[in-house]
Amino acid sequence: MTLGRPLQFDPEQALESAMQLFWRKGYEATSLQDLLQATGLSKSSLYQTFGNKHTLFEQCVEHYRRNMIQKMQEMLAQASSGRAFIKQLFLGVFDETQGENAHRGCLIMNTASEFAQSDPVIAKLVTQGTKAFAELFQAAITQAIAEGDIPPKKDVKVLASYLMASLTGLKTLVKSGTSAEEVKAITGVILSTLE
Amino acid sequence: MTLGRPLQFDPEQALESAMQLFWRKGYEATSLQDLLQATGLSKSSLYQTFGNKHTLFEQCVEHYRRNMIQKMQEMLAQASSGRAFIKQLFLGVFDETQGENAHRGCLIMNTASEFAQSDPVIAKLVTQGTKAFAELFQAAITQAIAEGDIPPKKDVKVLASYLMASLTGLKTLVKSGTSAEEVKAITGVILSTLE
Repeated sequence: MTLGRPLQFDPEQALESAMQLFWRKGYEATSLQDLLQATGLSKSSLYQTFGNKHTLFEQCVEHYRRNMIQKMQEMLAQASSGRAFIKQLFLGVFDETQGENAHRGCLIMNTASEFAQSDPVIAKLVTQGTKAFAELFQAAITQAIAEGDIPPKKDVKVLASYLMASLTGLKTLVKSGTSAEEVKAITGVILSTLE
Repeated sequence: MTLGRPLQFDPEQALESAMQLFWRKGYEATSLQDLLQATGLSKSSLYQTFGNKHTLFEQCVEHYRRNMIQKMQEMLAQASSGRAFIKQLFLGVFDETQGENAHRGCLIMNTASEFAQSDPVIAKLVTQGTKAFAELFQAAITQAIAEGDIPPKKDVKVLASYLMASLTGLKTLVKSGTSAEEVKAITGVILSTLE
């Protein structure tokens, strides 16, 4: 038995770089050459570590979901209230109207849009992602109801799905060129449904 | 001067077939081979008539916008009220949860999602498309206000942008696998903002 040569690169860092690229460009528009350049890996290292482009993409979607959910859970824990967390998420869309990370949207919903239900493996990853986001929205709404900021008669599950649809639609409008000003006005209407 | 040979095919029909394909698969995932098969054209006919894949796609997006806007204008003219037209548009999302044309979304918003602002020519076509849809929503809302079905204090432009964001987000959720049942419940929340 040989232990083999130790890895000359950090797989987590390579995964992060590949994920950033897929997030910005989408699956189909990202070439193997793009991936090698972004990760700094040789073709053989990339294939040995992550399989092919499809399996690398699967790992990137899971990596995104884990990181994003953790980040949002921390945001919720640190927010002054459940309602404040929800508002903060929508205010975050402003950042997507400008700067280096503009027009990226959400990798899970970008993937839903690109693949729809055409690829069963990807469809399952998208379902896992939307389920995780829905649970987080449900937790925030439940907290906001307990805090007296959302009326208790509201259906938590439906309201969570509605907020996800709204956030996704808003991010797509930003991709179509909608201004920060318009995002703010639309967000006002979206959040009025929490009254 | 020669008049050349007459076309052996209907360019409008070829454009429609190519558009249907791009709508279902997206730009990047559609190959030249797919396009030749869908349109029944030879490579030289396709290039002579439509230019390259990119210019063909541009013509498909314009073709989609023209047809969809005309269809929606007819729907609005035939609807019993502005409010009924808006409801009908959202009910139409049900059809996208099943059947042959399931999970297609809207070609303009799919294109916004796929390209974001990365391609100036496409970005301009997307802006033209969202502007045309926004004007149609504004016309329906203005009519509904005149008919007493939406309070006159509502901001027509903001409400139109909100409805576009909601419809787009809902269609993306459908692409992620959301059921007809959930679509109905979310639509209820969206339309409650018209009260």
